[in-house]
Amino acid sequence: MMATLYGVGIGPGDPELLTLKAARIVGAVPVVAYFCKAGRPGHARTIAAPHLNPAAAHLRLEYPFTIEVPVGDPRYLIEIGRFYDAAAEQVGAELDQGRDVAVICEGDPFFYGSFMYLYDRLRDRFPTEVIPGITGMGGCWTRAGSPITHGDDVLTVLPGTLGAEAMAARLAGADAAVIMKVGRNLPKIRAALQDAGLLTRAIYVERGTMADEAIRPLAAVEGDDAPYFALILVPGRQRPR
Amino acid sequence: MMATLYGVGIGPGDPELLTLKAARIVGAVPVVAYFCKAGRPGHARTIAAPHLNPAAAHLRLEYPFTIEVPVGDPRYLIEIGRFYDAAAEQVGAELDQGRDVAVICEGDPFFYGSFMYLYDRLRDRFPTEVIPGITGMGGCWTRAGSPITHGDDVLTVLPGTLGAEAMAARLAGADAAVIMKVGRNLPKIRAALQDAGLLTRAIYVERGTMADEAIRPLAAVEGDDAPYFALILVPGRQRPR
Repeated sequence: MMATLYGVGIGPGDPELLTLKAARIVGAVPVVAYFCKAGRPGHARTIAAPHLNPAAAHLRLEYPFTIEVPVGDPRYLIEIGRFYDAAAEQVGAELDQGRDVAVICEGDPFFYGSFMYLYDRLRDRFPTEVIPGITGMGGCWTRAGSPITHGDDVLTVLPGTLGAEAMAARLAGADAAVIMKVGRNLPKIRAALQDAGLLTRAIYVERGTMADEAIRPLAAVEGDDAPYFALILVPGRQRPR
Repeated sequence: MMATLYGVGIGPGDPELLTLKAARIVGAVPVVAYFCKAGRPGHARTIAAPHLNPAAAHLRLEYPFTIEVPVGDPRYLIEIGRFYDAAAEQVGAELDQGRDVAVICEGDPFFYGSFMYLYDRLRDRFPTEVIPGITGMGGCWTRAGSPITHGDDVLTVLPGTLGAEAMAARLAGADAAVIMKVGRNLPKIRAALQDAGLLTRAIYVERGTMADEAIRPLAAVEGDDAPYFALILVPGRQRPR
């Protein structure tokens, strides 16, 4: 029997927000793999730790550089492509030995995740199963106590890395919005929300569902920098019912 | 001690896609409440059934009419408002007796859910906790084997009930899209996707993650009607990496 590749969403941070299926799989597989930075334990591993098979081997897939390398740099695409090739090779080698591998992924594997680059490279070679996870944004709107969409709202999810003009245009038509990848894009995001008349509705969430989460109105956030994984929520237009 | 109101997301349909937290809560509370149609068991109850406290009382919150009543009809807002008032009263009566109540919700309680109308009415009166769930769309893109967003994609989530023109305008600017509430809106959705040049990328998913799910290219779907809970996915523009 061929071994199976699992892409397992482990949710936004609270270890109790894994699904029953995710917990079953990560508690049983002989090999757990995760993307991480050199010298760090890896966010995904930290979140899933209470549920991992204690006897599992750990396959660390260490990014060759941090996310601060601009995506537009031509080196980026080449280097990241080589990195995913090598990571797929490592995971594939375990599967070739008949060992099931669970790649644990923060949030949901198919929603802005790195897993999909392994999936592209390995899905035709091995049986593959993906387990959805609670997204970071879902964890954040829950903790903020803010229903995000009502009735016929349109929801726009956009990365903070978008250009200022494109961001303003997208926000102008949005009922509800989520802005990901805040980081150094905070001043641009703030300006775009102001232009769209949405600044007063915007909520800033940092590390939602984790022990050290921080949630406040964006208008009350000072400074021009934020963690990369902070989110901005603009809840939809609630109509009375 | 005051009783707690829980809004519990139970995910897209597969009973193993509840979170550990959701399963813990629905397995312990003395009262489980859910929206349903008269004479039907209720989708949420069916999904959560294996995990419910067997001794729990069931509080059925029966919609006074089906979703076929047009939202634009003035009677709709009045009647649905009265219905939510009465439902909040029923749930509040249990909480007043000191019994915790879990309102079980398909998908995520804060993502196009009915729970938020109870939340609005009860959150100031009782301690309230919301547990996020895997959304229907997350279950669908997982089962379709289609990563929905990559890198800097913008995702637009829109209801099929939107007007044809508004829908076409939203789709024209989308990298990735999810169209909810398909039902009788299928011909309009098909036309809007065709205009936006997205029809060949669109995937139709019915009852994703459930035993009788159906997944196929939208271009291969015949007829002008679909279940209300069918979804259309337009995966983002995957760039090689």
